[in-house]
Amino acid sequence: MQAEIITIGDELLIGQVVDTNSAWLGQMLNKHNIRIRRINSISDNKEEIFSQLTDCLQRSELIIITGGLGPTRDDITKNTLVEYFKMGWRVDEKVMEQLQAFYKSRGRTMFEVNKMQAHLPDGCITLINEWGTAPGMWFNIGEKVVISMPGVPYEMKNIFEFKALPLLVKTFSQPRLYHKTIVTINVPESLLAKNIEDIEDSLPVYIKLAYLPNWNMVRLRLTGTQQGDSDIISEVNAIADRIAERVGEDVVAKEDLNMAEIVFKALKGKNKTLGLAESCTGGYISHQITLIPGASKVFVGSVISYSNSVKHHQLGVDTTLFETVGAVSEQVVEQMALGVRQRLQTDYAIAVSGIAGPEGGSEEKPVGTVVIGVCSATETVVKTYHFIGDRMNVIGRSSNMALDMLRRMI
Amino acid sequence: MQAEIITIGDELLIGQVVDTNSAWLGQMLNKHNIRIRRINSISDNKEEIFSQLTDCLQRSELIIITGGLGPTRDDITKNTLVEYFKMGWRVDEKVMEQLQAFYKSRGRTMFEVNKMQAHLPDGCITLINEWGTAPGMWFNIGEKVVISMPGVPYEMKNIFEFKALPLLVKTFSQPRLYHKTIVTINVPESLLAKNIEDIEDSLPVYIKLAYLPNWNMVRLRLTGTQQGDSDIISEVNAIADRIAERVGEDVVAKEDLNMAEIVFKALKGKNKTLGLAESCTGGYISHQITLIPGASKVFVGSVISYSNSVKHHQLGVDTTLFETVGAVSEQVVEQMALGVRQRLQTDYAIAVSGIAGPEGGSEEKPVGTVVIGVCSATETVVKTYHFIGDRMNVIGRSSNMALDMLRRMI
Repeated sequence: MQAEIITIGDELLIGQVVDTNSAWLGQMLNKHNIRIRRINSISDNKEEIFSQLTDCLQRSELIIITGGLGPTRDDITKNTLVEYFKMGWRVDEKVMEQLQAFYKSRGRTMFEVNKMQAHLPDGCITLINEWGTAPGMWFNIGEKVVISMPGVPYEMKNIFEFKALPLLVKTFSQPRLYHKTIVTINVPESLLAKNIEDIEDSLPVYIKLAYLPNWNMVRLRLTGTQQGDSDIISEVNAIADRIAERVGEDVVAKEDLNMAEIVFKALKGKNKTLGLAESCTGGYISHQITLIPGASKVFVGSVISYSNSVKHHQLGVDTTLFETVGAVSEQVVEQMALGVRQRLQTDYAIAVSGIAGPEGGSEEKPVGTVVIGVCSATETVVKTYHFIGDRMNVIGRSSNMALDMLRRMI
Repeated sequence: MQAEIITIGDELLIGQVVDTNSAWLGQMLNKHNIRIRRINSISDNKEEIFSQLTDCLQRSELIIITGGLGPTRDDITKNTLVEYFKMGWRVDEKVMEQLQAFYKSRGRTMFEVNKMQAHLPDGCITLINEWGTAPGMWFNIGEKVVISMPGVPYEMKNIFEFKALPLLVKTFSQPRLYHKTIVTINVPESLLAKNIEDIEDSLPVYIKLAYLPNWNMVRLRLTGTQQGDSDIISEVNAIADRIAERVGEDVVAKEDLNMAEIVFKALKGKNKTLGLAESCTGGYISHQITLIPGASKVFVGSVISYSNSVKHHQLGVDTTLFETVGAVSEQVVEQMALGVRQRLQTDYAIAVSGIAGPEGGSEEKPVGTVVIGVCSATETVVKTYHFIGDRMNVIGRSSNMALDMLRRMI
């Protein structure tokens, strides 16, 4: 069984919005052994939607559409589906009641366009939207299923996870697909490939290996398809173990976690706390950590010391260092780390100072020069790195390497 | 003339990686009046690539492919293109020299797989990769153009902007497409639509209006297509002015900027500085500001006061308040704002404390309760909000509303 996604919206095609819905849907479907064959992003245009739907229905059994269900005139998905499937209209009373409650609780007037959200194709099953006004729609088209949901990510996610997915799992039962990811840091992709060449050579045809490099990390993803009654999970895990053993301490996780999640787990396991002094990363590392629910169990706080004045007053960095060695130096970063650990009274601290670019570089310290320090009560490690890439790249790489330095210390 | 994007990689289909390349390419092409018709994400699979290429070449004149050019075995794009276009191979000496220099400068051994990056289809123009080892390739197929680039975002961007785009602009000349975006905050989409209904009714057929809601903001995008010698820019701008006038002070920008960029511009224009005290937003607002090159001109620093201890010791919040009114209260947030402004010696300050969820809510203060304060030397404003959505949503909405409160104060 194959699935396709259609995301509708000119904003995707002109790059005004990044399509994050498809990746999330891919993850969810994948967990339930449904393989996405293609993701298709198209315009808010009737002819395009007709043509894409026809293509998808020829190739795949499940088509998931997001976008174009809003109350404004540029949203044409619902009308287009009614026309495509040659259906009539009905008013869904349950949706109408929910809309009335929604507007009442917000003290807002309900306009005619808002009421239209309860007008649905008469051939669809309604998927109630708990967090918004546009319901999802489920169409049974012969043996195939078409699902249409709004494009607003959190509304879509809620509808999909709690309304569509339970029905999907009932409708389609699938041969097991099993993914296992090993996360490595600081080893280039080609070096990794060389190192595990013999393991890759000996993989059976139903187990695939992919390399996903990003910001000084490479994720190695093994994907196995169940053969009859075989135990695909044990088989893939055994290969993962061989790879992890070979790569050694540059393996940071044997599941698909980011560096913030890895460090959070390590700290939480030991009941230790963390504080940060961020300069060039400007809050990005703290943001990555605080995205994790329950972050407060290990994360105490940070000082984002963008100016030298904050580095001095809030972290106690010696001002003479700014003139002698500069703010991007091992001496300053060491004082930042020690200063934030002492002032925030944490078990561990991370400090980062560098030149994220595109301006601010010099002959001696070019853009991408980043100094990272980590410390505990008994140990301090400070290192200088030279990262390549644009501003966000330098920030992202600094973040990963800083968290990895802390991981090694823990 | 129409263009399509093909992004290749199973990681996109199973949601392990979000496709940000397509949005960036959409923006770049759009600036040069080239319209993307579809974005197609497919598997690392020869048959899928063949079938997608055939479809795209039937529909469109320009096809841009990203992904699958790495040195590892799961990268099959180059071999597949050679087979599809029935080409031979050549060694590109310039690329080989560049590779040798790349590995030498990093002190790394160059393996056979790395050398293979200089083996290119004999019918392609090489697009040198300044930031990596996989060059881009430009194929002239009759009147059509196919461009293949690596999937690593900063490598792709560099190749596209500096190598492919200049050639593209020479190859295709286009009727002018003009976009104008107006950014609004805190007005629901349907209310906005009602408010400007008559303006929308009177739009000519060659000017389209789209609504893009996200995190308490709606971007209104007008798109005009040039008719003969008409002055499409003036015409679209005049409509944008009418809309902006109607919506009034909820318009935060008349160009496509995010809230951090809007506040940065306002502060820079007045030569004023900013400091933040972030609790539930955990560094996200600071990160958004420091993503802007030159942020240090206005941004001094932040205290991320996740724990109450940091709120007290680093910001001077009265500890008795934590017991009487709690950390998520207007009293605490006011003290956070005043405290960070005084300690970081800035002209303005923002403070945020709230419950991002999914845990930590109560009857009285449910998940999504966020208190935001902004202050200057002479004025302090503190407000309590109730946001809906998941953790990142609450963080994103808090960030936008906090920056908007500051905008109104400036």
